[in-house]
Amino acid sequence: MPLGTTGFASGCTPSDTIHTVSIEFQIDAQSGVARSGRLLTQHGEVATPVFMPVGTVASVKGVPQDILEELSVQILLGNTYHLYLRPGVEQVRKLGGLHRFMSWPRAILTDSGGFQVFSLNDLRKVTEEGVTFRSHLDGSSHFFSPESAMQAQIGLGADIIMAFDECTEYPADPVRTRESMELTLRWAARSKKHFEEHKNEVPWNCDRGSSEPTERSGDHLRTPAPAQALFGIVQGGMDRALRKESAERTVEVGFPGYAIGGLSVGEPRELTREIVEATLEHLPTDKPRYLMGVGTPDEIVEYASLGIDMMDCVLPTRAARHGLLFTSEGKISIKQARYAADEAPLDPNCGCRVCSRYSRAYLRHLYAANEVLAQVLNTIHNLSFYLDTMRAVRHSISLGRGARFLSEVWSQPKA
Amino acid sequence: MPLGTTGFASGCTPSDTIHTVSIEFQIDAQSGVARSGRLLTQHGEVATPVFMPVGTVASVKGVPQDILEELSVQILLGNTYHLYLRPGVEQVRKLGGLHRFMSWPRAILTDSGGFQVFSLNDLRKVTEEGVTFRSHLDGSSHFFSPESAMQAQIGLGADIIMAFDECTEYPADPVRTRESMELTLRWAARSKKHFEEHKNEVPWNCDRGSSEPTERSGDHLRTPAPAQALFGIVQGGMDRALRKESAERTVEVGFPGYAIGGLSVGEPRELTREIVEATLEHLPTDKPRYLMGVGTPDEIVEYASLGIDMMDCVLPTRAARHGLLFTSEGKISIKQARYAADEAPLDPNCGCRVCSRYSRAYLRHLYAANEVLAQVLNTIHNLSFYLDTMRAVRHSISLGRGARFLSEVWSQPKA
Repeated sequence: MPLGTTGFASGCTPSDTIHTVSIEFQIDAQSGVARSGRLLTQHGEVATPVFMPVGTVASVKGVPQDILEELSVQILLGNTYHLYLRPGVEQVRKLGGLHRFMSWPRAILTDSGGFQVFSLNDLRKVTEEGVTFRSHLDGSSHFFSPESAMQAQIGLGADIIMAFDECTEYPADPVRTRESMELTLRWAARSKKHFEEHKNEVPWNCDRGSSEPTERSGDHLRTPAPAQALFGIVQGGMDRALRKESAERTVEVGFPGYAIGGLSVGEPRELTREIVEATLEHLPTDKPRYLMGVGTPDEIVEYASLGIDMMDCVLPTRAARHGLLFTSEGKISIKQARYAADEAPLDPNCGCRVCSRYSRAYLRHLYAANEVLAQVLNTIHNLSFYLDTMRAVRHSISLGRGARFLSEVWSQPKA
Repeated sequence: MPLGTTGFASGCTPSDTIHTVSIEFQIDAQSGVARSGRLLTQHGEVATPVFMPVGTVASVKGVPQDILEELSVQILLGNTYHLYLRPGVEQVRKLGGLHRFMSWPRAILTDSGGFQVFSLNDLRKVTEEGVTFRSHLDGSSHFFSPESAMQAQIGLGADIIMAFDECTEYPADPVRTRESMELTLRWAARSKKHFEEHKNEVPWNCDRGSSEPTERSGDHLRTPAPAQALFGIVQGGMDRALRKESAERTVEVGFPGYAIGGLSVGEPRELTREIVEATLEHLPTDKPRYLMGVGTPDEIVEYASLGIDMMDCVLPTRAARHGLLFTSEGKISIKQARYAADEAPLDPNCGCRVCSRYSRAYLRHLYAANEVLAQVLNTIHNLSFYLDTMRAVRHSISLGRGARFLSEVWSQPKA
């Protein structure tokens, strides 16, 4: 089985950085183009394909960390833009990095801040150097460049960090799409250069206290030496040729993992799928492939079946806050009066702590009464459903049955 | 040791109601006038003196029931006024009562709704018959009488329910205080009459599925037959003579437990203490005595030392939502910038799941970032602190050392 690393562990002084291993990725089973495997990070092992819950400002909104552990969450996503604004990168760095700050001993991935910054349509200005933007909190002016985004992510100290890219808007004409892709490629090289020069500054470097691998670590996967892993991001809009070129040239820059960005930005789902497939053809099979910002339960199953290893999305947590709950029988809008006297569990096929204890009637009441516990319980269930879904996908792949059959079983009715 | 009951169990058909036991109360240790004991309810045993967390609309805001169980909460308080408005008594009754509705197998006490209704200063009108009030939610008009308050509380099905009283405002002149006290006495008799005629209508009557006593039940305390316990409420304002009269005449009406109402309504703390002591002198020692709506950690210790068995207050939960945290070293306002880089636990002497995992810096960040997890964790800690305090009080009484020494140790600095 292919084993992709960036080198071999040999210590943690600055002069050793060239030989520092960041992550290891091992594929354990394949079924068609789908694969299941393990990503070994500085903070434990992650079974793939994985869905990463979003913990925007160092918290998965409403859910204590011990409950995330009970849900078997192995990796969380943090948003650099939000953490940069509050509590601030320097604050987190001084407190030992995100893991220690939020008491989360397992793996973390941070985005580069690029996507959030580009979402601030009226509040940003892009130049070759970087992006000037205004805070959504207080309107204050800030600047992100590939270098400063690396600096921020090194300070936060996630296990996996992302190159600073430009998320091309949808739709975009061919000229604009190419220009944006080229900018992302130049920024990818600058991101890597800055990262290589500064990666020894990660706050947990030379402090392995909380970075022991979990008991799930495979015997033949060594624990990598302390280093973050920087992933590159493929752009290229909805143009298959540009996606191919972006993938090949990003691979030329060279990263231990590759993300597909610029999708799930408003395009039709069939197009998303087409671009994902077209892009994956040009990414190395021995490196983790991360599709950013997706999706619904049946979408994550579908993309796993195409060979995606990592995904993240605010959908399960955000939908939970709006009373939209995913179940094995379809989506439920718990605010509806029809559930007011429904004593059944939310999902009779779910074993989570919410479904095993509370009725739909109670959850509907909590939501209607605007009780905070509604958000807490709804979020726990939705995350549980997503994690169970990915567990089933991994199991299915390991049995050689592929992941796609699940998308038929669990296909969600349209809202 | 005195054992106070209202009769003996002999079945649960309507014709048996005269002989139905509601609760049993046993005093296990005394130290001066302070006592520790056990209250055996239809839904488990409650160690006294007890602090009852407030779960206004069938939820302790932000805290899942299993965490309340982990905190060893043995009894919760629900607010009849809020539950009556939302989700509605009939809804809860049809779903088997509050215990089943909210999946809480341990004891529950509901207030009569009187205190909330009287808090609606501009939205209520009091007559001999009862109180007309407007909902704080939608302005709709409603009417509570002793009879309808009993009907509501029987439908909700708490283990302990409260007579409908008038909470006399502070200050009030002697004429007004006597009139109010007399009204409460007439309403107490009407409450009891209606309750005795309808107590067999409790939703869990003849359904003991979830009412097994907990493993903490003492060997020599029998499980009472299904029935709620109706407590009387002593009023009389800040007048010792009226308190004496109210206590004696409420005892004449006859209840399995007595509450002291109309305190903690704005009067000085020394006066509260004086009235509590003056009232307790005239309440039976073999029945549970419940001081409503108190207090700070040192107040609950003080009142326990005076012989109070039960207390409730929104303070720990409400303060938590405002970032005010009780610790063994005094009160902490976690929003303060001084905690932004403080890696210490909230309370180094607390073993709760919050103090054993998170730093003050993280809790301060969650509060500053308006994260829901702030409310969840802060509430868990404050409840843990209150429950630990009462545990220490019970232990102290059982050792014959009284409870008051704790009020010196844990006296809170003034805000």
